[in-house]
Amino acid sequence: MSVVLGANQYGKAEVRLVRVDRDSPRHRLTDLSITSQLRGDFAATHLVGDNSGVIATDTQKNTVYAFARDGIGAPESFLARLARHFLARPQVTGGRWAAEQYGWDRIGGGPVPAAPDATATDTTGTDATAAPDATGHDHSFVRSGGERRTALVHAGASADGTPQLTVLSGLRDATLLKSTGSEFHGFPRDRYTTLPEATDRILATDVTAWWRYTDDFAAEALAAGDGGAAFDARYDAVRAILLETFAGLHSLALQQTVFAMGKAVLDAYPEIAEIRLSCPNNHHFLVDLEPFGLDNPGEVFFAADRPYGLIEAAVTRADDEAGAGPGGGSGGEVPGAPAGPRPEHPVWATIGGFV
Amino acid sequence: MSVVLGANQYGKAEVRLVRVDRDSPRHRLTDLSITSQLRGDFAATHLVGDNSGVIATDTQKNTVYAFARDGIGAPESFLARLARHFLARPQVTGGRWAAEQYGWDRIGGGPVPAAPDATATDTTGTDATAAPDATGHDHSFVRSGGERRTALVHAGASADGTPQLTVLSGLRDATLLKSTGSEFHGFPRDRYTTLPEATDRILATDVTAWWRYTDDFAAEALAAGDGGAAFDARYDAVRAILLETFAGLHSLALQQTVFAMGKAVLDAYPEIAEIRLSCPNNHHFLVDLEPFGLDNPGEVFFAADRPYGLIEAAVTRADDEAGAGPGGGSGGEVPGAPAGPRPEHPVWATIGGFV
Amino acid sequence: MSVVLGANQYGKAEVRLVRVDRDSPRHRLTDLSITSQLRGDFAATHLVGDNSGVIATDTQKNTVYAFARDGIGAPESFLARLARHFLARPQVTGGRWAAEQYGWDRIGGGPVPAAPDATATDTTGTDATAAPDATGHDHSFVRSGGERRTALVHAGASADGTPQLTVLSGLRDATLLKSTGSEFHGFPRDRYTTLPEATDRILATDVTAWWRYTDDFAAEALAAGDGGAAFDARYDAVRAILLETFAGLHSLALQQTVFAMGKAVLDAYPEIAEIRLSCPNNHHFLVDLEPFGLDNPGEVFFAADRPYGLIEAAVTRADDEAGAGPGGGSGGEVPGAPAGPRPEHPVWATIGGFV
Amino acid sequence: MSVVLGANQYGKAEVRLVRVDRDSPRHRLTDLSITSQLRGDFAATHLVGDNSGVIATDTQKNTVYAFARDGIGAPESFLARLARHFLARPQVTGGRWAAEQYGWDRIGGGPVPAAPDATATDTTGTDATAAPDATGHDHSFVRSGGERRTALVHAGASADGTPQLTVLSGLRDATLLKSTGSEFHGFPRDRYTTLPEATDRILATDVTAWWRYTDDFAAEALAAGDGGAAFDARYDAVRAILLETFAGLHSLALQQTVFAMGKAVLDAYPEIAEIRLSCPNNHHFLVDLEPFGLDNPGEVFFAADRPYGLIEAAVTRADDEAGAGPGGGSGGEVPGAPAGPRPEHPVWATIGGFV
Repeated sequence: MSVVLGANQYGKAEVRLVRVDRDSPRHRLTDLSITSQLRGDFAATHLVGDNSGVIATDTQKNTVYAFARDGIGAPESFLARLARHFLARPQVTGGRWAAEQYGWDRIGGGPVPAAPDATATDTTGTDATAAPDATGHDHSFVRSGGERRTALVHAGASADGTPQLTVLSGLRDATLLKSTGSEFHGFPRDRYTTLPEATDRILATDVTAWWRYTDDFAAEALAAGDGGAAFDARYDAVRAILLETFAGLHSLALQQTVFAMGKAVLDAYPEIAEIRLSCPNNHHFLVDLEPFGLDNPGEVFFAADRPYGLIEAAVTRADDEAGAGPGGGSGGEVPGAPAGPRPEHPVWATIGGFV
Repeated sequence: MSVVLGANQYGKAEVRLVRVDRDSPRHRLTDLSITSQLRGDFAATHLVGDNSGVIATDTQKNTVYAFARDGIGAPESFLARLARHFLARPQVTGGRWAAEQYGWDRIGGGPVPAAPDATATDTTGTDATAAPDATGHDHSFVRSGGERRTALVHAGASADGTPQLTVLSGLRDATLLKSTGSEFHGFPRDRYTTLPEATDRILATDVTAWWRYTDDFAAEALAAGDGGAAFDARYDAVRAILLETFAGLHSLALQQTVFAMGKAVLDAYPEIAEIRLSCPNNHHFLVDLEPFGLDNPGEVFFAADRPYGLIEAAVTRADDEAGAGPGGGSGGEVPGAPAGPRPEHPVWATIGGFV
Repeated sequence: MSVVLGANQYGKAEVRLVRVDRDSPRHRLTDLSITSQLRGDFAATHLVGDNSGVIATDTQKNTVYAFARDGIGAPESFLARLARHFLARPQVTGGRWAAEQYGWDRIGGGPVPAAPDATATDTTGTDATAAPDATGHDHSFVRSGGERRTALVHAGASADGTPQLTVLSGLRDATLLKSTGSEFHGFPRDRYTTLPEATDRILATDVTAWWRYTDDFAAEALAAGDGGAAFDARYDAVRAILLETFAGLHSLALQQTVFAMGKAVLDAYPEIAEIRLSCPNNHHFLVDLEPFGLDNPGEVFFAADRPYGLIEAAVTRADDEAGAGPGGGSGGEVPGAPAGPRPEHPVWATIGGFV
Repeated sequence: MSVVLGANQYGKAEVRLVRVDRDSPRHRLTDLSITSQLRGDFAATHLVGDNSGVIATDTQKNTVYAFARDGIGAPESFLARLARHFLARPQVTGGRWAAEQYGWDRIGGGPVPAAPDATATDTTGTDATAAPDATGHDHSFVRSGGERRTALVHAGASADGTPQLTVLSGLRDATLLKSTGSEFHGFPRDRYTTLPEATDRILATDVTAWWRYTDDFAAEALAAGDGGAAFDARYDAVRAILLETFAGLHSLALQQTVFAMGKAVLDAYPEIAEIRLSCPNNHHFLVDLEPFGLDNPGEVFFAADRPYGLIEAAVTRADDEAGAGPGGGSGGEVPGAPAGPRPEHPVWATIGGFV
């Protein structure tokens, strides 16, 4: 019954990297917080403090900054570059590289695009027919909100011993609210049930989502030589689908909305194998104004902090294309897996607060 | 040398109020955190626990919700309604009512306007020639960022004993960055100086600003019967001026930028008596890539958390119009005040972390 | 390739429960934040908004408060009561119940004990020979810090279809620092390595730990009828071991310290099957005072915020007693499991930000 | 009506300074966050970006670290050293230096004292008769909580043009709760009042307090050559009085408790001229268990986040010793000031969120 080292990883967390692309007077800005974590044969440092195999976390941080010198591109691509670099070291057999990206708009214009376009320099006017990023200041920016784009590259062991890269994209804290078009009733009533049935309520949430690309798609997108433009395009499109589905569905339960949001994404993009959503139910309670001689026809609400509902769901595919395991085969998917509940993809165990 | 009660105030803080305007199928949303604080003759509760004059903080909260039943309008107007209500109570001689407002965009559209317009219902298309709020979903919204609009109504004692309302508007945490067009050099060097001179640096800050309206303007705007539309208009315009000035000025110091931002606002709006800005210098340090055999021509930065510079300044007017005291006269300004440093308007002492 | 619902759970998060035990004039206080999440057959609500099987999250919250009427005991025991209650519902096949507990000291005394003792009422004096909780005020308390005790009861599917309860205890944000007795050197140097070797540095961290009890121990402790006193005792003892090991070990790497902390716990308590630790390396950088003509012999440090190192490790047992899977057998452990890396216990996949 | 620069200040905020005193093997630890802000003639940088008078905020930070080389002592003393240093520069006419201090206990022992004592090295035993700091590890520490000691040195203009130092001490976020001995009733009821009268409720708050020393006392304590030991002693004593008064008073209103806390401090220490307290009323609502067929005799509570009551009061002295203005006279107090409401001491206008 001897005590042994189990799973372990280490690295540098929240490396705050801001990169200015100043190839033209019309600067672009990439603003990231990056975490690099390595797995492998690190027993010696744990057991006896022998660091001869330990790539210092400071070195990991330096590598992030050095790699940024060549440009960043989509965060998924940048993380994959880091992954491959560290996986080339003999002691590293896996790892996890994650990013949060903060959005910026040009002052007087719109969001800074991921890739440069040919638009000319600063203009204070607004030409609605112009190409994207045609307006706004050349080198002055305003942060566009608390919502963040996220990315994750995970390297786990595969059947043949080669680390298999898994790529996820996501978003955090997209705060959504609909002021009608939401009901909640028909739930069972027991001794502890006091909630009245609601046929018209506010539905509000902060969407956190992670979607996993098929290994084939990820491999192609990473190999494309365009800095991961496919990831940028998917991010924008998936975000739009999530918001539009939230808006469009007449909701009978937040669970229904959450599943619909995920399903809409999977319906639209076969290259997305599965998606997980974690959505608090940010309760807005109708204030009882009757003691003051007033009615309250769905107009005045108290926005509560805690407790809150919490709805978490994975939306996946019924057959084998979506794969789950990190196993062999082209792209790491698992054709011919048996029916029944498939095992979870191991990347999910590394994502906290989620299903 | 007996011990006595000094200045005191009490109230309810951070009342989270969300109001849905559902006069038409095209809902509007007002999302506020409101704090109500009363001053007056409350010695009995402090000294002997006699609460016969204490308007319970719970009652203050209820009043906020009840008043919201009639609509909110600009936060400045709503706070003034609360102020007048509580000031009518004999034991209340002053107070402070404050609000933070969270912005929402329509999903698929732009910001929800403060006032309704005649635009028809939901459309997924975008017509750039249409009136404001022409696009986006009727009743589904997405939070537009961490930046918040703020408002403050202060009631202090005046010469004739009538509480004088002072109205301030502001914004918090507008995060701005310019990637060039900023220098800092020529500062004195002493034994403890190591900072190199910079002729091209990132300048980044989170703007917090408060501006005080002249009493005449505030009184007119509150009396206009339009829910304080003048405050809404000023807010949008002042925010735009602050951002554009930050963007446009080639900066030799954050102090210069801060003063220019304030001056531009006062130049544009005579009805604004003074403005105060509190702006951290969010340091972005150029990473030294030389140890890795790389140059770094202003492209790769480390965004530091702490410590940070902190620049705070009031921008005011040289003559008497701006007034400072809450004293008598039409509008409470102080014509004929002596030259030299004017006393600060007492409202500023109630605003923390600021000059 | 149809889209289907995958893993899902829902519940009420961060139910803030404060219970006063006033059986005697010497009150005791239990202060918790509780999260209840249910898993089971909830496809109908996700797919078509049919809530007939959905135990409302509001009902879950009510149940927490109602159960607290009978007393709380150790958080592990309270969570297990909730678990059994909800698992008795046919649609619930599993779940996750978690708690954070905030510590309080008596004003003028020490920590409030989990269980009552016979000590008499309030005394301002301090008698070091008295029983625990002999001093301090009867009903006035001061929060004892940012550190929190945590607990988790997880119900997963077992071989025979009966949900198997797994019990974990932990702590969060115990901030530790040693001002000497820490080195870090001998790490490999590559193109991106600039970190100097350190033979005497500050080592600082915020310990987050989770330990899993054997199923046999957990079952016994829950059945003991003493409100889970065994969990309270283990918590105090494990916390002390973690701190003492951190203090006592001359550290050659934070990894070494982390493993030693975990090993010391497992060495002391056979009823703990495994433990996981997540420990940031809160960097304290020696300030270079040489430009000011000063030396700095390990005395003046800059405490950095970000980035930070992050060391995460599981410490487990080499043989089968520790078990990993939720499978059959008495207590759910897995005697006779094959050699090689055992599968992770499924509870770990539900704990975020951790290995 | 030209626009001019008003009040302004600038500096470096939240310089995180950790100092290890290693004069003996029994280390002591001082952990501070320091903010330095200068006032003076800085118009040139604001108006035209001329920085020739601007002591860079980076230089201010360096000065903090360089000064720490000689030891820190009480935070009040350290801030005064900084103040005098910067005030010696011709362009600096005033300023504000503030600190937050984080507490640490020895692992296995008690709080690390501010000043060294003669106690021998590490011991695992506990000798209740020994001098302070007799137990616990020599160089390993655990953070003692979220509560923080605060200090402030303010330099304002005085009658003769010499900047006058004002010294304040304080504490933040001492979270207190009494589970009985608190009532609230007898308050007026109007149209918006629904709160029931309470004869036994939980009273909970997070105490923030600032007390101002008389100028004479501050000058003596700073001149004593003992690193400000008088401030350390006062801090411990005032904190104890605040907690004991909270505990001991049967409260009829939080206002009564707040005033009593302040009065007890002023009664005990004539060298404290005035004290201000800001205390949220952290509501603990009795949960209605009747729908579940249960009573709730003051045992089960919901701890709410927002909104919260907010009680703020200054406690001062009736006669002139307490002074208010920074004006002339020995020690800057104002003997012979006229009756009636004295002007506030200008330092209070620099402290946010407070009366």
